[in-house]
Amino acid sequence: MQNFVSSNYTVGILGGGQLGRMLIQSAISFDLNIHILDPNPEAPASKYAHQFQCGDFRDYNAVVEFGKYCDLITVEIEDVNTDALRTLKKQGKVVHPDPDVLDLIRDKGNQKEFYAEKGLPTAPFKLYPSTKEIIGDINRGEIAPPFVQKLRTGGYDGKGVQIVKDTRELTELLQGPCLIEQIANIDKELAVIVAGSDHNNEITCFPPVEMLFDPKANLVEFLSSPADIDAETAKEAQEIAVHLYKEMNMRGLLAVELFLNKDGSIWINEVAPRPHNSGHHSIEGNLTSQFEQHLRSILNAPLGNTAIKKPSVMVNLLGADGEKGPVLYEGLDEIMELPGVYPHLYGKKEVSPFRKMGHVSCVAETREQAIALGREVKEKIKVVAKK
Amino acid sequence: MQNFVSSNYTVGILGGGQLGRMLIQSAISFDLNIHILDPNPEAPASKYAHQFQCGDFRDYNAVVEFGKYCDLITVEIEDVNTDALRTLKKQGKVVHPDPDVLDLIRDKGNQKEFYAEKGLPTAPFKLYPSTKEIIGDINRGEIAPPFVQKLRTGGYDGKGVQIVKDTRELTELLQGPCLIEQIANIDKELAVIVAGSDHNNEITCFPPVEMLFDPKANLVEFLSSPADIDAETAKEAQEIAVHLYKEMNMRGLLAVELFLNKDGSIWINEVAPRPHNSGHHSIEGNLTSQFEQHLRSILNAPLGNTAIKKPSVMVNLLGADGEKGPVLYEGLDEIMELPGVYPHLYGKKEVSPFRKMGHVSCVAETREQAIALGREVKEKIKVVAKK
Repeated sequence: MQNFVSSNYTVGILGGGQLGRMLIQSAISFDLNIHILDPNPEAPASKYAHQFQCGDFRDYNAVVEFGKYCDLITVEIEDVNTDALRTLKKQGKVVHPDPDVLDLIRDKGNQKEFYAEKGLPTAPFKLYPSTKEIIGDINRGEIAPPFVQKLRTGGYDGKGVQIVKDTRELTELLQGPCLIEQIANIDKELAVIVAGSDHNNEITCFPPVEMLFDPKANLVEFLSSPADIDAETAKEAQEIAVHLYKEMNMRGLLAVELFLNKDGSIWINEVAPRPHNSGHHSIEGNLTSQFEQHLRSILNAPLGNTAIKKPSVMVNLLGADGEKGPVLYEGLDEIMELPGVYPHLYGKKEVSPFRKMGHVSCVAETREQAIALGREVKEKIKVVAKK
Repeated sequence: MQNFVSSNYTVGILGGGQLGRMLIQSAISFDLNIHILDPNPEAPASKYAHQFQCGDFRDYNAVVEFGKYCDLITVEIEDVNTDALRTLKKQGKVVHPDPDVLDLIRDKGNQKEFYAEKGLPTAPFKLYPSTKEIIGDINRGEIAPPFVQKLRTGGYDGKGVQIVKDTRELTELLQGPCLIEQIANIDKELAVIVAGSDHNNEITCFPPVEMLFDPKANLVEFLSSPADIDAETAKEAQEIAVHLYKEMNMRGLLAVELFLNKDGSIWINEVAPRPHNSGHHSIEGNLTSQFEQHLRSILNAPLGNTAIKKPSVMVNLLGADGEKGPVLYEGLDEIMELPGVYPHLYGKKEVSPFRKMGHVSCVAETREQAIALGREVKEKIKVVAKK
């Protein structure tokens, strides 16, 4: 029999942020040897890796050199050198997700064309080489605001995306190759995390979750598991996510963010081929956490059961507006007194406005109780700079 | 307001075994800086400490030097240099548990006298400087087998303890200062884990668990949470454990192993002032894990709620009889397919008979289902040496 886990097997992770940190927390139980590559010597995962390599995951040589000492290479960020990953694959290393998937996903234009080609539902869109052509199309009456503009590359955590409401805003268009798409008439924003394994050829989904955004920072600040949707909608969301996963022919997690429109249709919004903010609640809320599932998937081990253990809510701990300096978690003592509340601090020493500093999971007996607990946490804790 | 947790606060742990390893896994979420002192460079916790110091926690100088760079010092093993801890206390370091508690606990004779003095229920006993005096007492007809003989110091995981059934076995008596005690007429073996905090002056207990032993290795091999006892018995077990905790005037966890006798009385068997095998299930089974609770307690932070999230069973992964060499977890793939099953491998590279190599937590909707799952796990997995 094959042993999927042991300290003799080395998994290299490109990126040492909070996702790498929580992957390590999970990998400890499986006794995996974890190496991390990140340019920041103080990266959240740096202290817990068996081997931390300070270097740039966007640099070809750094990634190839790093991979030399790994059996398997995975990522916690999309923006990595995929040519280096191709070289490592040729050398016989296991690489999940595949470099082709990373290239596809990191260009939102290619992503949208892929959806269209594979019959996957997404907002109607058009690609543009620059803003000039958008204005040309508007002048010719072919398109008109309101629409969403997205830069094809480089966007992250809501950056590189904007809603253009009317023609007065055209001077504010983001510069560079981009796409515009129809604004969804959103009822809810959902997310489904998928994982597959060659073991039994399984593909599993986590139950859909519902996201609520901070309108100012355009970051998820509040997430509820399970989503408040009917069983049929949940099934459809999962089917779309699995369909996409199969078309991408990938291993490891794929987080799929979806719009549930007011007319009941579902559109794929964005995807991430790695552990994702929309799965943090699973650490305490589900039978298997997304981090453990990612490890099981890239190892082609049996997948874990994703069923909900308890309804949960995830509250992002973002730096408060205007706060910059050494971090202080104001009210942490108060939330630590609440039953079923789990703070996860990412070890970042400096806070800045809307920076992701940690998250808090809240579990309860019912969805309503979990939401109430999440609201209480959100009111009590504030991430500020030390005075 | 006080911040209990942050990467600027350094907790030093004497001992880097699996308990230290799981303490770190928990401390990551609180962003605590963890230093470890252990003589084994390959100790299970060594790779995950912010600072790993290879040295002997029984050595005065090693402990004092190690403590210099810590704000707080705690233990994951009792057998440490308590004089060094006293020195560190005098230097203004926080030390939990207190060196006096460690000294008291590590001598089973003193422990028993302490129980007697404080009115805490325990098996009737008598102390002996050596076996000669035991035989003298037997010859004078003052005592007679059957009885339990325990060495006062050095016992661990069932070593240094034996049942003497009749006088033919007297040549086998353990040599050294010891005690003998009446054999309990055991209905069940229970354990209760207690923690206290200056924050709100709380003392909390985990719900009692029930232990089943491997008769050959005298190690817990199976544990069920909650114990199958009535509410009144559970309350009494918790009251005894809290009474003991208060008398010891301690901080950090105290694991209290108890005999529930067939006549309904409860006796304290043994105690450990640290995270304990009887609390491993709490990682997945309870709202707060014992490791997080230990950290909360030694930091005098608010204590976590100990309520059961799901009924659970903990199966120890012991090296199989006759197996010695590089470890292989036979059947790991099979148990990874079971929902609600959580393997925790301790990263020990070499297996030997009955060595604790890991544990598996199993959670389910009911106690009966959790027990059935635990049995299935126990049947499917075997820790052997690679052929």
